[in-house]
Amino acid sequence: MLISGNEYVERLSSYEREIFVKGEKIEDFVNHPNIIPVINSIAYTYELAKKVDAYSPHSDLVNENVNRLNFVNRTPEDLIARYDYQRELSMRLGTCNYRCTGADAIASLYPATKEMDERLGTDYHDRFLKLLREIQKRDYACTAALTDVKGDRAKRPKEAREMYVHVVERREDGIVVSGAKIHQSGAFAADVNFVLPTQTFKEGEEEFAIAFAATPEDEGIKFVLQNTGYQAKFREGGEFELGNPKYGDRITCTVIFDNVFIPWERVFIFEDLKGVRNTLATFATSHRCVGAACKAGFIDAMTGAASLMLKANGLEKVPALRQRLGEMVGVAEAAYAISVGAATKGREEQGVWQPNTLMANAGKVVGVEGFNKVLMNLADIAGGIPVTAPSEFDLKNPEVGKLLRKYLQASPNFSTEQRLKIIKFIEFWATSSHLLGAIHGGGSPAAAVIFLQMLADFKTKEDAVREALDLEGDS
Amino acid sequence: MLISGNEYVERLSSYEREIFVKGEKIEDFVNHPNIIPVINSIAYTYELAKKVDAYSPHSDLVNENVNRLNFVNRTPEDLIARYDYQRELSMRLGTCNYRCTGADAIASLYPATKEMDERLGTDYHDRFLKLLREIQKRDYACTAALTDVKGDRAKRPKEAREMYVHVVERREDGIVVSGAKIHQSGAFAADVNFVLPTQTFKEGEEEFAIAFAATPEDEGIKFVLQNTGYQAKFREGGEFELGNPKYGDRITCTVIFDNVFIPWERVFIFEDLKGVRNTLATFATSHRCVGAACKAGFIDAMTGAASLMLKANGLEKVPALRQRLGEMVGVAEAAYAISVGAATKGREEQGVWQPNTLMANAGKVVGVEGFNKVLMNLADIAGGIPVTAPSEFDLKNPEVGKLLRKYLQASPNFSTEQRLKIIKFIEFWATSSHLLGAIHGGGSPAAAVIFLQMLADFKTKEDAVREALDLEGDS
Amino acid sequence: MLISGNEYVERLSSYEREIFVKGEKIEDFVNHPNIIPVINSIAYTYELAKKVDAYSPHSDLVNENVNRLNFVNRTPEDLIARYDYQRELSMRLGTCNYRCTGADAIASLYPATKEMDERLGTDYHDRFLKLLREIQKRDYACTAALTDVKGDRAKRPKEAREMYVHVVERREDGIVVSGAKIHQSGAFAADVNFVLPTQTFKEGEEEFAIAFAATPEDEGIKFVLQNTGYQAKFREGGEFELGNPKYGDRITCTVIFDNVFIPWERVFIFEDLKGVRNTLATFATSHRCVGAACKAGFIDAMTGAASLMLKANGLEKVPALRQRLGEMVGVAEAAYAISVGAATKGREEQGVWQPNTLMANAGKVVGVEGFNKVLMNLADIAGGIPVTAPSEFDLKNPEVGKLLRKYLQASPNFSTEQRLKIIKFIEFWATSSHLLGAIHGGGSPAAAVIFLQMLADFKTKEDAVREALDLEGDS
Amino acid sequence: MLISGNEYVERLSSYEREIFVKGEKIEDFVNHPNIIPVINSIAYTYELAKKVDAYSPHSDLVNENVNRLNFVNRTPEDLIARYDYQRELSMRLGTCNYRCTGADAIASLYPATKEMDERLGTDYHDRFLKLLREIQKRDYACTAALTDVKGDRAKRPKEAREMYVHVVERREDGIVVSGAKIHQSGAFAADVNFVLPTQTFKEGEEEFAIAFAATPEDEGIKFVLQNTGYQAKFREGGEFELGNPKYGDRITCTVIFDNVFIPWERVFIFEDLKGVRNTLATFATSHRCVGAACKAGFIDAMTGAASLMLKANGLEKVPALRQRLGEMVGVAEAAYAISVGAATKGREEQGVWQPNTLMANAGKVVGVEGFNKVLMNLADIAGGIPVTAPSEFDLKNPEVGKLLRKYLQASPNFSTEQRLKIIKFIEFWATSSHLLGAIHGGGSPAAAVIFLQMLADFKTKEDAVREALDLEGDS
Repeated sequence: MLISGNEYVERLSSYEREIFVKGEKIEDFVNHPNIIPVINSIAYTYELAKKVDAYSPHSDLVNENVNRLNFVNRTPEDLIARYDYQRELSMRLGTCNYRCTGADAIASLYPATKEMDERLGTDYHDRFLKLLREIQKRDYACTAALTDVKGDRAKRPKEAREMYVHVVERREDGIVVSGAKIHQSGAFAADVNFVLPTQTFKEGEEEFAIAFAATPEDEGIKFVLQNTGYQAKFREGGEFELGNPKYGDRITCTVIFDNVFIPWERVFIFEDLKGVRNTLATFATSHRCVGAACKAGFIDAMTGAASLMLKANGLEKVPALRQRLGEMVGVAEAAYAISVGAATKGREEQGVWQPNTLMANAGKVVGVEGFNKVLMNLADIAGGIPVTAPSEFDLKNPEVGKLLRKYLQASPNFSTEQRLKIIKFIEFWATSSHLLGAIHGGGSPAAAVIFLQMLADFKTKEDAVREALDLEGDS
Repeated sequence: MLISGNEYVERLSSYEREIFVKGEKIEDFVNHPNIIPVINSIAYTYELAKKVDAYSPHSDLVNENVNRLNFVNRTPEDLIARYDYQRELSMRLGTCNYRCTGADAIASLYPATKEMDERLGTDYHDRFLKLLREIQKRDYACTAALTDVKGDRAKRPKEAREMYVHVVERREDGIVVSGAKIHQSGAFAADVNFVLPTQTFKEGEEEFAIAFAATPEDEGIKFVLQNTGYQAKFREGGEFELGNPKYGDRITCTVIFDNVFIPWERVFIFEDLKGVRNTLATFATSHRCVGAACKAGFIDAMTGAASLMLKANGLEKVPALRQRLGEMVGVAEAAYAISVGAATKGREEQGVWQPNTLMANAGKVVGVEGFNKVLMNLADIAGGIPVTAPSEFDLKNPEVGKLLRKYLQASPNFSTEQRLKIIKFIEFWATSSHLLGAIHGGGSPAAAVIFLQMLADFKTKEDAVREALDLEGDS
Repeated sequence: MLISGNEYVERLSSYEREIFVKGEKIEDFVNHPNIIPVINSIAYTYELAKKVDAYSPHSDLVNENVNRLNFVNRTPEDLIARYDYQRELSMRLGTCNYRCTGADAIASLYPATKEMDERLGTDYHDRFLKLLREIQKRDYACTAALTDVKGDRAKRPKEAREMYVHVVERREDGIVVSGAKIHQSGAFAADVNFVLPTQTFKEGEEEFAIAFAATPEDEGIKFVLQNTGYQAKFREGGEFELGNPKYGDRITCTVIFDNVFIPWERVFIFEDLKGVRNTLATFATSHRCVGAACKAGFIDAMTGAASLMLKANGLEKVPALRQRLGEMVGVAEAAYAISVGAATKGREEQGVWQPNTLMANAGKVVGVEGFNKVLMNLADIAGGIPVTAPSEFDLKNPEVGKLLRKYLQASPNFSTEQRLKIIKFIEFWATSSHLLGAIHGGGSPAAAVIFLQMLADFKTKEDAVREALDLEGDS
Repeated sequence: MLISGNEYVERLSSYEREIFVKGEKIEDFVNHPNIIPVINSIAYTYELAKKVDAYSPHSDLVNENVNRLNFVNRTPEDLIARYDYQRELSMRLGTCNYRCTGADAIASLYPATKEMDERLGTDYHDRFLKLLREIQKRDYACTAALTDVKGDRAKRPKEAREMYVHVVERREDGIVVSGAKIHQSGAFAADVNFVLPTQTFKEGEEEFAIAFAATPEDEGIKFVLQNTGYQAKFREGGEFELGNPKYGDRITCTVIFDNVFIPWERVFIFEDLKGVRNTLATFATSHRCVGAACKAGFIDAMTGAASLMLKANGLEKVPALRQRLGEMVGVAEAAYAISVGAATKGREEQGVWQPNTLMANAGKVVGVEGFNKVLMNLADIAGGIPVTAPSEFDLKNPEVGKLLRKYLQASPNFSTEQRLKIIKFIEFWATSSHLLGAIHGGGSPAAAVIFLQMLADFKTKEDAVREALDLEGDS
């Protein structure tokens, strides 16, 4: 089923959730100014899926069209369609779409549960498929939670047990879990939250090797939102003052599992080290690869803003500034091409098409370095005004509004309000959560480099050199 | 005279100023949450000057000790003392000290007025000295305003006259000026605002070639503050939630000159193209050079925060992360060393010691590139939590406070509050005005490169190559 | 037909060519030490094509299997196979394969001639197909020559006529051309040299708007080789001393057309501005895209060498150095993935599959920046010894050979000779023509950025921002 | 005494040395084509010292003027004069001056021997002063040898004893040492070679903790030269073909100590761990700091070449290329300013003025990154021709010389020979030993970052943050 954005919002309105913002549990969360932008973003994912066929493919599992983000991608073309969807969402929203981790969880739990069943004779895959069918049929918005709070990094999980989501009670009908996950983008506005471990574990640490699905309605789940400057701005209200007024900053939360009961039918890995390793390897690859396409979309938005800014300033013909635009385009196309290349050179795993691991990790590195480079270009093009401009409210002040309106206009083709809208949107890119989000989403670039180093086929490269040099000829 | 921070605040309280914040003219500006951090920062400059002799040298002009930022620096050691002061302020405040442009204006108007008097037989220098003595004696806080709003960049000043501060009336006793200056850091909390042109002008554009001193009390001057996310946060209140709670974000404003009368005794350049060229060349060099020392101080603060973060996470011994710290130190020392080198290889100009022009511009470039690199390192070290952490208010919530306190602690040597303070301070660096401020303060890096290219002695370098290659040997 | 490497060399031996090396016209060019490495490299392209099916596809044009580099690629898979071939060649040769420009000429002249015939009613495409069939049947090695010497860049072609290949006489049976092309990789060791213009031309410059095929045997063609340090080394002889002893440095030449007669059947564009524009646009895209795959292969070779060097030094387990390897892998995979992505998101043009233009240009930029980064990593890993090591001859000296053998061994798993071979191979990367070749091959990165800026769809990006900001809402 | 360049060469001619080049022990080494450029470079240091007073200060030790590189620098001004000398040499030679390590050895052994005498009651300092007086009086050229060959890096020195210079016999009148030092720039053309340990040592490794002075005439010392492409070129002869025809590539050698007897009067540290630590810490700081000034000089030469290249091509007015020049100037000025800043903020140590340690290490990092950036700019400006141009010999060939002369000229203000000279000089920068030399001279950048991380005062930075955040307020 493909529901509309409004239907998603209506369904959301029917839920009761424990959500805390700036120290208070909020009522009527769907109308809270810090949550509306997240809901707008997710609602847009529904609207766009309805408009573009490639984003709403036919699923054999339920014999109907479903959202690409809830789909089991089986071909390179499937994956590329997902990346196209992702890039377009990032460009149009200028922020997170909040559903990509859900898609990555599906892409990784599907093969991992199958492998476990083959190896262990369990029925994890059936449980998973049952939930997946429901997700597809009801067109649920899904997210995935991975990062445990970890506590003192000098300790192993066993020593800092409380700091990792873990089983506190094992019952006939399910398990009770406790712990907390941080960095959870939009989890409070989803229908289903997949919960995966934050890392692989060694023998003796099996208690942490679990994966399951929760819903925000499960008793004991509490969401505590981040509190950035943009959230303060949104609480104050305003229009273009907000930078990205419809879709806002990337909003994350800490999810606390305070003795939450999870029925067995929603448990997909239980104390299995290999199952976790498989899931995480696949998840990381899937998430880093889509992250490259996502960054391309963000860069598209920044490039669009830069191009408009030049026009609004009357500078659109200056060659040195146009080169800056060209560089921005190059970064976006590089990041996107890497995701497409990774899909093309991917591999089938238990019926799911996975992107090429090395390329996905390379995409992460290029995406982060590129994002930073593009942000610097954007800052160059925009000048200092994005952080020094008056507010939209000042334009309305009887004493200075008229003067500001005069002084802040540049090109006659753009009104002062239009120019300020663009300026505030650029400020948003330079001062929102996006820079850190780009760096750490899907793990840091350093983590990607470790993957590259562990997984690369050095032997073939060494052998090529050995042969070219006739290295064994004289030893 | 050296007044205390409190005396500065008291004096400020006695003023009446037209200051607009978020659409409203504010009363009791010294107690407004968006202005307090600026006042705290400037007050600190007074306190530190009292503590450190090198920051409060003896001035022959008034025969007493004065603030280094109001001093006429006559030796390399003087300049280095200024850079030390600046670096320390940046490190301790974690934001702008709001007085460096005032010092740069003094450093540039002093020689420029002297040169004009020699060339034109005018008395600009005496007028200037008279004001400077008053500034030194009363220990005024000074700023300088340069950047005109400019309007449509496709037009020359003549065509966009209103967009440049210009003389609307010439009277017996002075001039009446109109226009607006943007990007003015802390001008509303100063005692004196020097006003300089935004650029040099050609023949026929003499009407814009003016420089003068205004005071925030002059009738017709209106300050309109920027409105970033941090300002919204400060309006909401809180403590460590604010990132840099005492000194806040770098706060700038747009200064509108709405038919402001300036008596002749405060006019220092009047329709003189060369005077403007001299002033701006010196100002730019002076400001870019001190900017390198300033960035060093900001990087010190980021490095201190990074070092604390590693400790609070229990990661202070990880070699790869320590290398990141080492890189940060290297950038700070490089930027600072360049300013010291520029002072050492500077030159005397009409009795004022000026930094080396090429080195000052090189310092600008290194400072910006370094600031960005350091910010990436800081982000690497901190992880994503600076933009995803709950607020201080959540720690106090009866339902989740205790849980959060448990889950957000890491190293036992730091309480959760302490760790969150560090985290929020790092968020401040990543999402405040500082990145754009670093890029554009003192002009963009591209502008610095143009200076480097215009002023470098290519002939000596070419000649060295010509000689090494015996280039003329066979032509 | 697929000939062997030996057959290629035998055929080459039967030719007579005017080749100048270090001031002398050489006899028996196939046995000249500066030409042998080029021949070895090209011979290897033949051997590898025989081994790998994907590199020798079936051509409908001649109904037999042909070399992929002489093939008309009609699908994304075709292009990817070409990139795989290219990357493998670069890795295995550690230098140019000298045939990629030939493939790019085929990819661009095929559609351009077809378009001209449709537009002009000419028979260029038939002429071209006739030659192409011969190339495929006889398995010719082809190159393409583009870069004119240009002379004084301050002049337009008309003013510097001699500096551009141009028609000096138009005959019944063909044209006589004069001029010179520089930067020609391996042209002297090919069977066919396509000659294309160096740039597009304006109305009135039609005389330069020509393209044709020459053969190195055409009367009046003279090849003058470059003369780098490696060529001096090869002339002196030796074995591993030569760094890349079999395949050598990238060897280019200047090709002088001294009144060369070209029969009409080998003329493919004659005084047609649009034909040239089409050809060059396609050629540039094709060449830049394959260049990204080529750089990936070079980086593979450097990575293999770095990995061997670490082992030879006993440093293969040092985490900081392994991260360097990981970064190198990331760059190679990024560059290669971009070429694959560009093939996948390419487009059909007159029956030929062309890579995505924006991605191809992005690949150029990433390839160059990546090559430089990887070279720095390689230098870091190798230390200073690649440029300070004694020679292989010193190892054989009776007085110091034994001592050197002792002192220059490190890990017991590698003999001194083996370690020195690796060291000299790394020296080769750091001091050969490759760095400049990587930067300028296919045009400079700045040229690629200009393409990106000209061809990007800014409107879609601007519109996304306009919509997100409701930009027209209030204008 | 200040001798002339010729006097240095004459003295050198009177020596007998065991020098091996490309497998052969050479006779008449002062006339060998691979040694002449080194001698020319060193001779130039003598000539320049005679011309510039600041480079030949008065020494109290001998009461006469001496070369700045043999001087004991006692003030910041002394050090800055040394850096000026160094930068000018690098600019004018375009290669190593081969004497800076000698100056660094003097700067470090002077205070270290004094400290040992104070601590141990030894007479090392007197021995050292005796030699130093001789060096100053006779105007000797000195170098220093540090890097041991090390062998298998997985082993400690004890396990790889032969791979470190060590004492094989202790006699009444001196010691006998064996081992080998690599990377020795120009040692074979010096008068005195200081020999210092390659690293600090732990207790139990005292046998390696030695420092002494050798002369190239000491029995058992053998020099084995590197063998790069440029050396092959110089052996072939030619003029501008050689890139940097007078001064050549940076020529290093491996110095083998084959049971060399060193009298006690030339032993300055003997089995003292602390003496070694002090010497090396000072040497590293001294060498890295002067390295920054040296890189500035190299960049000056590259900038001069780039500026000439633009003129020779008729491109000197293109804004985008001029910006490239400006960037190059910025890097040179930054590196040089850091060395000046380090001298200014240095410290006195046992009567010797030492540069600031942190700044010196920062200078190393900025120098390397800058050198690489500048090289890329130079490559951008020059295009591909530096690695594809014909040779000077081709210009003289009767068949193609005239044609080449026509085709390779560009701007009418430069003859073809002149343009080619510039081109070949740029090729030299891109393909010589300089890139690796810049990276590893004075230790790798990673080593400098380790120093920065170890020596930085993190506490002050942390305390500034603690105070700004009132960190202890609530713990």
